[in-house]
Amino acid sequence: MIVSRFKALTFDVFGTVVDWRSSVIAELRAVGEHKRIEADWVAFADAWRGLYQPSMDEVRKGHRAWAILDALHEESLRTLLDEFEVTGLSEDEIDHLNRAWHRLEPWPDVVAGMTRLSKGYILTTLSNGNVALLVNMAKQAGLPWDAILGAEPTRCYKPLPEAYLGTARYLGLQPEQCLMVAAHNGDLVAAAKLGFGTAFVARPTEHGPNQQIDLRAEHEYDFVADSFVDLAQQLGV
Amino acid sequence: MIVSRFKALTFDVFGTVVDWRSSVIAELRAVGEHKRIEADWVAFADAWRGLYQPSMDEVRKGHRAWAILDALHEESLRTLLDEFEVTGLSEDEIDHLNRAWHRLEPWPDVVAGMTRLSKGYILTTLSNGNVALLVNMAKQAGLPWDAILGAEPTRCYKPLPEAYLGTARYLGLQPEQCLMVAAHNGDLVAAAKLGFGTAFVARPTEHGPNQQIDLRAEHEYDFVADSFVDLAQQLGV
Repeated sequence: MIVSRFKALTFDVFGTVVDWRSSVIAELRAVGEHKRIEADWVAFADAWRGLYQPSMDEVRKGHRAWAILDALHEESLRTLLDEFEVTGLSEDEIDHLNRAWHRLEPWPDVVAGMTRLSKGYILTTLSNGNVALLVNMAKQAGLPWDAILGAEPTRCYKPLPEAYLGTARYLGLQPEQCLMVAAHNGDLVAAAKLGFGTAFVARPTEHGPNQQIDLRAEHEYDFVADSFVDLAQQLGV
Repeated sequence: MIVSRFKALTFDVFGTVVDWRSSVIAELRAVGEHKRIEADWVAFADAWRGLYQPSMDEVRKGHRAWAILDALHEESLRTLLDEFEVTGLSEDEIDHLNRAWHRLEPWPDVVAGMTRLSKGYILTTLSNGNVALLVNMAKQAGLPWDAILGAEPTRCYKPLPEAYLGTARYLGLQPEQCLMVAAHNGDLVAAAKLGFGTAFVARPTEHGPNQQIDLRAEHEYDFVADSFVDLAQQLGV
């Protein structure tokens, strides 16, 4: 039985749906082995993600024109190849490595949970990832999205309001009919301010074994779950 | 075996994927019976679709600001309620009737064909329908889209080039990697000019038993099929 006022579930993706860190580390290591390059690939992966917010900030603040995440990821990657003194990659190899973000693996509960949630709700990305990245990821991982929305179709990076409001508008819904699902307190607080419902799903190893942030729900949310299957149960599907 | 250069299939929807005419006639008749209103509902449905291109033309030509198809449909509906002297519908009933376009039924081969095609290709709408309309339709009919693209995310109505080019861009693909699938010669000619591949799927009763247009492929296309299942066969999936 559907027990909520929500018509759509809008999902953060990096960290909430997919384990970006393990996936990116594995792809970096594979390149390293193939090319016989030694580097601290764990540090490289964390540094790559470390440049994520600063690179979007340039767009958010209007210091540069709109650019999709693939482009920002590639700039950050080239910066880090220099910093980590990784040389000898061809342009094709750099492009393939940049697309590691198109091939991220979901957390173990995701496909089963989304399959259940899909029976009762519209499921959409509300991610800073660009459409191609999210479509390719979903195709490979078998994620049953009903729509691919978020930053690129609204031309606005979270947590700026238009990313959330524009996504609801594309769905023809009021913010109050949308439930934001995320492993990040900041994302949920931003969505809640605009009227979205909120569901926190803990991903305590997103940042590795020594994660310090987002270990638990830090505010009152509509739902707090430890997996997508648990969320489906709570949402009555 | 995948036998084509294409990564994505981009679909026209009204007429190609769904039988809009039978669905809209049935919804109009249901309202008529419920409200005990007599009218020529077949003529009403054809007149509603008749206002489709003129209403988009106002946007295409820049005579009015961007408006999604739901809004254009509603304006046309109100015009026709007057013309056909249909009275007594509440605002909720008018809204429900306008959303008949969210509930269109697919042709019988569509779900089976798309399910096969989905194994080898990215499947996206490239429709003049707005995102909410297409998402709701897909949810009800079980259409396995990978993305909902076309007019609204590109803010441009077909057959203007940006609707096609913007859709390819969202997918991170060149036009040559996209195969436009449509039952309408005009749509395919517009797509081909931009580099898209073309697949004509005949829908000879889209406009009813006396259909005069788009009965057959009028140009050379990459594929000509009589159903989505036939197209899947030809595309090696």
